[in-house]
Amino acid sequence: MTSPRPQTGRRAALARYLPILDWSRDYGRATLTNDLVAAVIVTIMLIPQSLAYALLAGLPAEMGLYASVLPLVAYAVFGTSRTLAVGPVAVVSLMTAAAVGNLALQGTAEYAVAAITLAFLSGGILLVMGLFRLGALANFLSHPVIAGFITASGLLIATSQLKHIFGVPAQGHTLPELLGSLIGNLGQTNLITLAIGAATIGFLFWVRRGLKPLLRSLGLPPRLADLLAKAGPVLAVALSTLTVWALDLQERGVRIVGEVPTGLPPLTLPSFSADLWGQLFLSALLISVIGFVESVSVAQTLAAKRRQRIAPDQELIGLGASNIAAAVSGGYPVTGGFARSVVNFDAGAETPAAGAFTALGIAAAALFLTPLLYFLPQAVLAATIIVAVLGLVDLAILRHSWTYSRMDFAAVAATILLTLGAGVEIGVSAGVGLSVLLFLMKTARPHVAEVGLVPGTQHFRNIKRHNVLTTPALVTIRIDESLYFANAHFLQDLIYDRVVCDQPIRHVVLMCSAVNEIDLSALESLEAINTRLTELGITLHLSEVKGPVMDRLKRSHFLDDLSGQVFLAQYDAHVALTGSAETGAPPARQEY
Amino acid sequence: MTSPRPQTGRRAALARYLPILDWSRDYGRATLTNDLVAAVIVTIMLIPQSLAYALLAGLPAEMGLYASVLPLVAYAVFGTSRTLAVGPVAVVSLMTAAAVGNLALQGTAEYAVAAITLAFLSGGILLVMGLFRLGALANFLSHPVIAGFITASGLLIATSQLKHIFGVPAQGHTLPELLGSLIGNLGQTNLITLAIGAATIGFLFWVRRGLKPLLRSLGLPPRLADLLAKAGPVLAVALSTLTVWALDLQERGVRIVGEVPTGLPPLTLPSFSADLWGQLFLSALLISVIGFVESVSVAQTLAAKRRQRIAPDQELIGLGASNIAAAVSGGYPVTGGFARSVVNFDAGAETPAAGAFTALGIAAAALFLTPLLYFLPQAVLAATIIVAVLGLVDLAILRHSWTYSRMDFAAVAATILLTLGAGVEIGVSAGVGLSVLLFLMKTARPHVAEVGLVPGTQHFRNIKRHNVLTTPALVTIRIDESLYFANAHFLQDLIYDRVVCDQPIRHVVLMCSAVNEIDLSALESLEAINTRLTELGITLHLSEVKGPVMDRLKRSHFLDDLSGQVFLAQYDAHVALTGSAETGAPPARQEY
Repeated sequence: MTSPRPQTGRRAALARYLPILDWSRDYGRATLTNDLVAAVIVTIMLIPQSLAYALLAGLPAEMGLYASVLPLVAYAVFGTSRTLAVGPVAVVSLMTAAAVGNLALQGTAEYAVAAITLAFLSGGILLVMGLFRLGALANFLSHPVIAGFITASGLLIATSQLKHIFGVPAQGHTLPELLGSLIGNLGQTNLITLAIGAATIGFLFWVRRGLKPLLRSLGLPPRLADLLAKAGPVLAVALSTLTVWALDLQERGVRIVGEVPTGLPPLTLPSFSADLWGQLFLSALLISVIGFVESVSVAQTLAAKRRQRIAPDQELIGLGASNIAAAVSGGYPVTGGFARSVVNFDAGAETPAAGAFTALGIAAAALFLTPLLYFLPQAVLAATIIVAVLGLVDLAILRHSWTYSRMDFAAVAATILLTLGAGVEIGVSAGVGLSVLLFLMKTARPHVAEVGLVPGTQHFRNIKRHNVLTTPALVTIRIDESLYFANAHFLQDLIYDRVVCDQPIRHVVLMCSAVNEIDLSALESLEAINTRLTELGITLHLSEVKGPVMDRLKRSHFLDDLSGQVFLAQYDAHVALTGSAETGAPPARQEY
Repeated sequence: MTSPRPQTGRRAALARYLPILDWSRDYGRATLTNDLVAAVIVTIMLIPQSLAYALLAGLPAEMGLYASVLPLVAYAVFGTSRTLAVGPVAVVSLMTAAAVGNLALQGTAEYAVAAITLAFLSGGILLVMGLFRLGALANFLSHPVIAGFITASGLLIATSQLKHIFGVPAQGHTLPELLGSLIGNLGQTNLITLAIGAATIGFLFWVRRGLKPLLRSLGLPPRLADLLAKAGPVLAVALSTLTVWALDLQERGVRIVGEVPTGLPPLTLPSFSADLWGQLFLSALLISVIGFVESVSVAQTLAAKRRQRIAPDQELIGLGASNIAAAVSGGYPVTGGFARSVVNFDAGAETPAAGAFTALGIAAAALFLTPLLYFLPQAVLAATIIVAVLGLVDLAILRHSWTYSRMDFAAVAATILLTLGAGVEIGVSAGVGLSVLLFLMKTARPHVAEVGLVPGTQHFRNIKRHNVLTTPALVTIRIDESLYFANAHFLQDLIYDRVVCDQPIRHVVLMCSAVNEIDLSALESLEAINTRLTELGITLHLSEVKGPVMDRLKRSHFLDDLSGQVFLAQYDAHVALTGSAETGAPPARQEY
């Protein structure tokens, strides 16, 4: 278990915001070696991914490389995860395309500036959330909704890449648009492109399934076999580039990456137009929150394996700094990626320095390697994206949530359908909104049980589930929910309906063992119930009221006005009221 | 208690949507007389109110009369309250002005068409909500937020009318705008207008406080004295109109109502422009919901006094039909009004027919009375509005909510401040949003107690509040909240923090007596906790899991994977685990 050593106040405060101060003190040769090895492997993996995701976002390929340099250094300084690998990722690239695609034409300077501004805004939002320690807000996204969103995004991304596999034009931000546009143009399919694309997809799937066992059967140690298998995409890139170059396939309609400018990331500035900020703000907020949730869950999973911890509020600052860094160095929104972080972890990265070394690797690639990518077919990049994102697709969440809870299922299904049918922004917003609404609706009609005494005990149970003792003059209602504005009226109706036609009732006890809160709306309803029951000659009592709830009730007039008593235990209420109940009910009907 | 007689299926279904079929069968001469008397009194009250509220909404005065004819007939057919009086009301008129004022200039034909369209959209929304039986959605507005919104609206309306009292131009939708604009123009005050306005306000306040005691001391029966006092505004209208006419005050700068067209409500159609619908939709939704909530709470209060009931879902249909009726007859959005319904009730109205008779009265006024209103000073209408809405202002809600709960206070204060400072639509939206957010935030960090056994009992209580028995190897945590996505992570962190540095722990029991729901996100967290604790050599148990929660857990793999057991009662867990606990903890530290 890594535990920080005791620190003096000022340095501790500084180290909270600069985690690098913590781990850099113990940095030695062995750690350096491990970090360097991991960095080399992640760099090799990240080069084709960075290019591919930039194209997915509708941006020039080199912006993907730029987004993989300075942001990684920023995260190494401010991030708390030892192994998270930051950079362009599939879902955020798709969200960038959706956000910026509404405002500017792909390929124009405005489009690139809007993407840079989006990174800047997203970084700003993350930093502000971090400084206000709002990491907990991410909890308002339910797990199934996130799973549904990622699955639908994966399907959307894979579909969006099919145009490169077939070598036809197609566009759209929703599944029907993409498919319609693709199918309409299938007549123009370039067969050589299709052959290259299909072969690459097949190869990459084989690499994922078959290469590792093959390498192991050749006698390689398991970890090395695993890492070499992860380098499969690089092999595909190299082979296909050579093939296109050797056969001049670009002359036969195979679209290639073409000239990627050589050089270090340029210094760039976001737009400071208030109009553009207004148009991008909601998208930036969604990208920030989704990126943060994804990144933190990867970081937490990996940290738990080594019994380390991450600090979610500081992660906001780390990712915020990364996105600001992306905005000033020609990049676009970035976050922590799942696959690359796992590779980084498996390759033995020990500190965020591995990320900084990866940044050096990518910078070197941007400086020297881009001419080699001239003949790389776009279909191969599309194939690497398709194979990567299909790994995100998990339709089992539908079955899983259906079995467990219809409410969770409704939220997941709506998220998936709306993401596919109306785009990523509407999809994830609706998913979040629906989760909250369903939770409120569930608590608005809470489970309520009329309870009776289990014979021979002091326990009270649901009269519908158990064989319990009751008496006609006394009704005990257990409410299995906090009382607040959304269910205040429900409670009123329930009690009126219960007592209105049942003549012998003299006492109503509300058993509050599961009531964790009574807000002002519910208090008003309780007052109304008390008044109404008094008019009907019925006394209202409470039992098993929790300490914090009782503290608050004491600050209102309710307890003074209450016609009955507040009993500490339901059994006390039973003892006190079944004695007094005889005044109201005919003794012959007593059931005890 | 009015209870519907048994009906055959088809007629019952019809009567559900047409409550008029229910009450019209018993309609006799005595009921007719009572309804007619009430109608006459409400008509007299409604004439100046209708004119005044139309001017408040920025519309020609006659549209207020039109909105008080056909909508009342529609409600009489479809509504379920026997005594609710429908028509233009202050808050909805203000919201209409805010919604339409953004789109068109006051006094133009576009402005009137937009108001008519707003009524049509609002009617459509209410009908759809009624057909889908969504009346319960209104419960998501917390009582204090509504009280705060009505109070702030009352202050805004009163301020907006001051310009008529001073006879100066002023405009704006927020308190600072209104006050700034008013104060800037005070130099142009028309002193005669101010004298008329101030005198009317003084007179109306005296009528409310002093007229009824005076009439009673003159020997009038209390009910008659009460009703005559309610007719005070009509007296003010008549006296001031005569004065202006006699002294030709309109020549000296006193603004008068002027020519109000004579005739029955015209047939009108809303605009069907998709653009306009898009611009008005959110406003229409807010007006529908606020109007519905206000109307239903009035209707319920009055129904309860006579032990009648109203059907909220059918009320949606009744109010929806009223607004559609307003849209096709030159009106604007309407709803049930508080003051006029109380007058209707006190005057003895027995059935919705009283509303239909009131409609006849207003139609007669529109046909014959409007020429008499030519010299009516606008300052007098403003004065009636000011006196009426100041009755809505209840700043005590701030103190009341502050004492009871800071969360309710925050929602009320934000609603009031934003309504005054940023307008009605932002104010009420923020109030609703904040109530929901605060509830979620409260449940996201629930009250959690570590509990121990109260000596000599089977009860478990908070170790911080009570003197209880504990043992180092066993930690029992009682969670006072349902487990769902917003607090799933909180629980994980809480348990990890508790167990991570406390070596002797061998068992963790989660006591679930207050857990009413475990959603899929929380289930995943429980699985993660179980896995993590198992790695640490700690067994996880549950106790007192409720029936519905247990039913659902049985449909997942969780119970198979759980390292420990599920105990029916916490005491069972205690008995079972304090025996087995000795294997882990040093016996010397046993505290029993």
